[in-house]
Amino acid sequence: MAEAVDYQVLGTRPVRPDGVDKVTGRAQFGADQNLPNMLHGKILRSPHAHARIKRVDLSKALAMDGVCAAVTGADFPTVASGVSIGEAGGDVMDIAHNVMARDKALYHGHAVAAVAATSLEIAEQALDAIDVEYEVLPPVLDVLQAMAPAAPLLDENCFTKNLPEKPDKPSNVASVMALSRGDVEAGFEQADLVVEGEYRIPMAHQGYIEPHACTATVNEEGKATVWCCTQGQFDFRTAIAKILDWKVGDMKVVPSEIGGGFGGKTVVYLEPVAVLLSQRAGRPVKMVMSREEVFRATGPTSGTVCRVKVGAKQNGRITAAKAWLAYESGAFPGAPVGPGAMSIFAPYDLENFLVEGHEVRVNKPKVAAYRAPGAPQSMHAMEVALDDLARQLNMDPLDLRMVNAADEGTQAPYGPKFPAIGFKACIEAAKKHPNYTAPLLEGAGRGVAAGFWFNVGMQSSAEVRLNEDGTVIVMEGNPDIGGSRASMSLMAAETLGVPYEQVKTYVGDTESTGFCNLTGGSRTTFATGMAVVRACEDIIAQCRSRAAATWGVDEEQVEWRDGQAVPAPGVNADVNPLSLADLAAGAPRTGGPILGRASLNAQGAGASFSVNFTDLKVDQETGAVEVLSFTAVQDAGKAIHPAYVEGQMQGGAAQGLGWALNEEYIYDADGVMENAGFLDYRVPVASDLPMIDTEIVEVRNPSHPYGVRGVGETPIVAPLAATANAVRDAIGIRINDLPLSPPRILAALGGE
Amino acid sequence: MAEAVDYQVLGTRPVRPDGVDKVTGRAQFGADQNLPNMLHGKILRSPHAHARIKRVDLSKALAMDGVCAAVTGADFPTVASGVSIGEAGGDVMDIAHNVMARDKALYHGHAVAAVAATSLEIAEQALDAIDVEYEVLPPVLDVLQAMAPAAPLLDENCFTKNLPEKPDKPSNVASVMALSRGDVEAGFEQADLVVEGEYRIPMAHQGYIEPHACTATVNEEGKATVWCCTQGQFDFRTAIAKILDWKVGDMKVVPSEIGGGFGGKTVVYLEPVAVLLSQRAGRPVKMVMSREEVFRATGPTSGTVCRVKVGAKQNGRITAAKAWLAYESGAFPGAPVGPGAMSIFAPYDLENFLVEGHEVRVNKPKVAAYRAPGAPQSMHAMEVALDDLARQLNMDPLDLRMVNAADEGTQAPYGPKFPAIGFKACIEAAKKHPNYTAPLLEGAGRGVAAGFWFNVGMQSSAEVRLNEDGTVIVMEGNPDIGGSRASMSLMAAETLGVPYEQVKTYVGDTESTGFCNLTGGSRTTFATGMAVVRACEDIIAQCRSRAAATWGVDEEQVEWRDGQAVPAPGVNADVNPLSLADLAAGAPRTGGPILGRASLNAQGAGASFSVNFTDLKVDQETGAVEVLSFTAVQDAGKAIHPAYVEGQMQGGAAQGLGWALNEEYIYDADGVMENAGFLDYRVPVASDLPMIDTEIVEVRNPSHPYGVRGVGETPIVAPLAATANAVRDAIGIRINDLPLSPPRILAALGGE
Repeated sequence: MAEAVDYQVLGTRPVRPDGVDKVTGRAQFGADQNLPNMLHGKILRSPHAHARIKRVDLSKALAMDGVCAAVTGADFPTVASGVSIGEAGGDVMDIAHNVMARDKALYHGHAVAAVAATSLEIAEQALDAIDVEYEVLPPVLDVLQAMAPAAPLLDENCFTKNLPEKPDKPSNVASVMALSRGDVEAGFEQADLVVEGEYRIPMAHQGYIEPHACTATVNEEGKATVWCCTQGQFDFRTAIAKILDWKVGDMKVVPSEIGGGFGGKTVVYLEPVAVLLSQRAGRPVKMVMSREEVFRATGPTSGTVCRVKVGAKQNGRITAAKAWLAYESGAFPGAPVGPGAMSIFAPYDLENFLVEGHEVRVNKPKVAAYRAPGAPQSMHAMEVALDDLARQLNMDPLDLRMVNAADEGTQAPYGPKFPAIGFKACIEAAKKHPNYTAPLLEGAGRGVAAGFWFNVGMQSSAEVRLNEDGTVIVMEGNPDIGGSRASMSLMAAETLGVPYEQVKTYVGDTESTGFCNLTGGSRTTFATGMAVVRACEDIIAQCRSRAAATWGVDEEQVEWRDGQAVPAPGVNADVNPLSLADLAAGAPRTGGPILGRASLNAQGAGASFSVNFTDLKVDQETGAVEVLSFTAVQDAGKAIHPAYVEGQMQGGAAQGLGWALNEEYIYDADGVMENAGFLDYRVPVASDLPMIDTEIVEVRNPSHPYGVRGVGETPIVAPLAATANAVRDAIGIRINDLPLSPPRILAALGGE
Repeated sequence: MAEAVDYQVLGTRPVRPDGVDKVTGRAQFGADQNLPNMLHGKILRSPHAHARIKRVDLSKALAMDGVCAAVTGADFPTVASGVSIGEAGGDVMDIAHNVMARDKALYHGHAVAAVAATSLEIAEQALDAIDVEYEVLPPVLDVLQAMAPAAPLLDENCFTKNLPEKPDKPSNVASVMALSRGDVEAGFEQADLVVEGEYRIPMAHQGYIEPHACTATVNEEGKATVWCCTQGQFDFRTAIAKILDWKVGDMKVVPSEIGGGFGGKTVVYLEPVAVLLSQRAGRPVKMVMSREEVFRATGPTSGTVCRVKVGAKQNGRITAAKAWLAYESGAFPGAPVGPGAMSIFAPYDLENFLVEGHEVRVNKPKVAAYRAPGAPQSMHAMEVALDDLARQLNMDPLDLRMVNAADEGTQAPYGPKFPAIGFKACIEAAKKHPNYTAPLLEGAGRGVAAGFWFNVGMQSSAEVRLNEDGTVIVMEGNPDIGGSRASMSLMAAETLGVPYEQVKTYVGDTESTGFCNLTGGSRTTFATGMAVVRACEDIIAQCRSRAAATWGVDEEQVEWRDGQAVPAPGVNADVNPLSLADLAAGAPRTGGPILGRASLNAQGAGASFSVNFTDLKVDQETGAVEVLSFTAVQDAGKAIHPAYVEGQMQGGAAQGLGWALNEEYIYDADGVMENAGFLDYRVPVASDLPMIDTEIVEVRNPSHPYGVRGVGETPIVAPLAATANAVRDAIGIRINDLPLSPPRILAALGGE
């Protein structure tokens, strides 16, 4: 499987360029931007999960010494629906209304007003001085309750989309969708046995360490500059401009280092507010969320209810599969039910299937993307069902998956035929892995699951510049959340034929580099990497042309080899090779600076598959799970920097284990989150986890010059079901719902 | 003369984009960058104008609480001579030794050591704790004295360059040069009359309002970022890297807004020191000069002694001209005697001439560029001599210049034949100007002089990016010291066929845009403007190609007209024109983001000529000069933004008047400047000057797509002689030396 390509720098593991700065505290994150004369902004948030806003009176706040500006929803322009922005595809009107409530507060923590003051203390006091009159409405907090006809309605203008007929009354169901193939009922009739279940997973947060933060300044010409932590400065620029009805060209967004995003920093919260406050105050405004605000008012991923039914022959071949999915979108539409529906059966070659999806509004924060958005929840259901099926068939769960595995030429459930993919290679690698062949410890359980993510392409640009000493600068527009600076430098060095150390990659602001869609969808190494490679090829073409002019030969008579222009074989030229440094030094005489650039809308992102398995023990007295080992196998296409790929796999496993075992949003009956802090919302810490073992499989993606597939999202998909299946194996009882927290396990054990 | 080209936006006068921010104090200048954990650096300066540094002991300073780093010349790497950097062409070794003295201090104020501490106060106290042992040497402060064989020698390794034979002993004369044509002695024999004189002008400072300032931080990966006020971030990057022996790719320079440069911000002073201190301390270091430091330790322009002899026929035709020039270079070589020698006779078509130039080291600060470096001093001599000649010939001084004026086809004294130039057009415009035809006020004098500057091309890059809403971003690498952001936007808008408001131009740091030589030599609107135009043409080519693909026609069947892709005449396509906004919106479907770029080493910068005249009165009791009117006429080629061109002309006149009337470096016998502050170094303020009247002449430069010539330097050349000639006219006495300060005029009046 592994390609026999002989690369010089790809696949090496140089020390990450940003590492030491981050661990010594010198890296500049979102909250580290300070400007002279800067104000501090704070947001007043709704104390009710559902309420009509009758009146907001800012006058007392504005009269306070030190308060320089205050705004409500009425200060924002009216934004029309219809433009989608961000990875999660949120409608701009919904994002605008999430940024600042207009006539209704739709969740506890929804922004209702904002102030900017000369100190944080004054800003906080000013919030208390804002007088808001609410008409409190009953909230609806659960996806199934929200679907009920008599449920409290979040939005009287919300009519379910994609129904066969236009509905005659509004609903909390924002949209429905369906995917199918073959005849699913006939398929079930052919089955020798059928498994089915309903699986519930509550909302969970990405758990990034860095809270949202930004500093905005609007200058006297009306030009805004926004520094913020973001996964996409260009998409943020679009969002802020659209929410405030500005020209994009008048808005500059500068991305900081990012302390975690995982999809959660693809959406604006503070930024348009800070710009508006700065414009009003004529001074820079900084806004930083508290951890509590992050939990109460930024986007977690959907809480879900998934029902799955799978039928199979005795040989394990699946004859039919059916799923019913309901995803909470929070206060506004935007639940990732589409990708959830498209991914649930993606690893398998199925003749008959049907998936029905529903996105449902509830009085909780608007969801945002979270690594492989939508896939972990739906695939948890399928992979648990398959585990039950394997038990009933008495088959090795890997063998069951191999029997049904999608391969090159299989038509994906969401349409296209797969080119070369690595699912079977992952199953084989898992089956041979020493952790899998090793016997299980006494009392322990083992669980297996598959993972999948589409990966996407989208628009990227890159600029490569040759410095006068032959060093190379790569500029691109994707915030580095997973090591992209190192990966881009590696690909540029490989393409140019120079050492890694000769190349430095930087992430530009919206003025200093060409347009790039956000860092998300596991697209950066693939799409932006492709732009970097093409921009380097542009450099090489110019170098060949300048060498040709220098030597007085034709351009076709010059080749690029090992980082040098050399005469092509057979060309009779008595010349010395010209290195990048030579060509850079000579550039003033040969036409000026040498700049390369490329832009593209990348096609052919290769789907990424994984197989995870874990051994764990359950404490029968406390219900606590001890993870003994966790093994992640994943197809990376080509691992440009293997340590970062392993890091993605380990990080995804850690997050997936947290989601499987402990993480959940807990609400009281009034819709107030009861665990809005890291003490009570328990993400795994180092002592909770074993070292995550990783094995990278490399099945080249034919659409990328170096065979790259995205690797950042697939890792979070399989851990949920792998963990649930291992707990089932350990305790002999199937628990369908997550998290498998001690109380839930104890309840199951007690009920045995 | 004026071109009949019909431009849509060129020649309009949009409000300057940076204006309001600057007057409201919101613009960010060099000292406005602050970073968390930042230290403050200060420099210990030599109290002697000439001294051997025997020993520097930092130990007491380093032991102080709050002192985090301290360095001396010994902490800098050894830098070899031979690489020239900056507009003034300084040798990197000299610049390195100017930044921090090694074995000798060569002027009062020369940097000897530096510290970084947690507060400015501690840093200043730490300077007092540094123990330096000097061997004090006699200084030499005057250019003629320094040329004497027995003069104290600044550098025993300095041997005069360009002598016919290699000298056998060192000298303060760093180099000599000569330019000649024809037989100058035979020319003088043909003359009906001869005038001659010796003209002395002391050192003068650019007088920029913003002192030098920078903040540097070296991160844990060894990457430096330097924020500073500079005329050239790329040349600064080169200089810092070479002085510290770093790779260029490890250094990022971010230019701030600049509060005046005029050539004085083409050289590094603080920046390498701040980088070294930051590297040592592991924290950011900010360094800001006081006004006194600016005067004592940054580069003024040369003090000069110029001797001129001119012979002419009765009809005014010059038969021979001869000049002997001696320019102070300060402590290190680098005096602009070359341009001084090349410009002195440039406005005239001469058969016989000889210029001999000398650059001479003295124990004063190393000179730096100052607007048209070298030309004001030498041309003052020639233009005063011509005034004397006109008087003796009883000719109008403009007629005398017209008789001898260079024109298209004239061979310039420095070599090439002039293409179309505007000197005669300027003389004609001056002669017709209402200020010239108006009678002189009772008791006033009028003086006339010509000005000239070469203008240069050099390397520039530009990147133009189309935003998704059709707005356009122009990124270039030249700090905006004279309105280049507006000019680039105007040229981009004209080229693209869109309104000015649709385009915004930004100045990038060294990572965010392609290499540009510094803003100097009046090259930016010409060379970088050309790059912007070409980058826009690149955008248009891509737009045509995408429109063709959209319409299914060939690219040649698409034209670009009025900011839109339209079918070429005769093409039968039933399509709607596609605007930039349409093409931007469609870009994701047609190949991704649309980016244009260009880089070049611009050739054909057009020489710029001027004629200035002034009316003034002299107070016989105080010797004070009252300027009644000042009229500047100048060829701009094409005035892209006429208000900025007029501003350049007015600013140059103001600086030239200050230089002519008051500004000078006054030294005591020990080489200590006695007037190192704006109270005693008197630059003109608004109440000292009348409104400067301007008239732009437009003789198209054939080498630029819009006919642009540089306009930033020529304005300072003619005011010196125009003023001196007017004083002569007013008081009937010729004073050869500048400044024409009240004491000098009183002395002349008293001596009558």
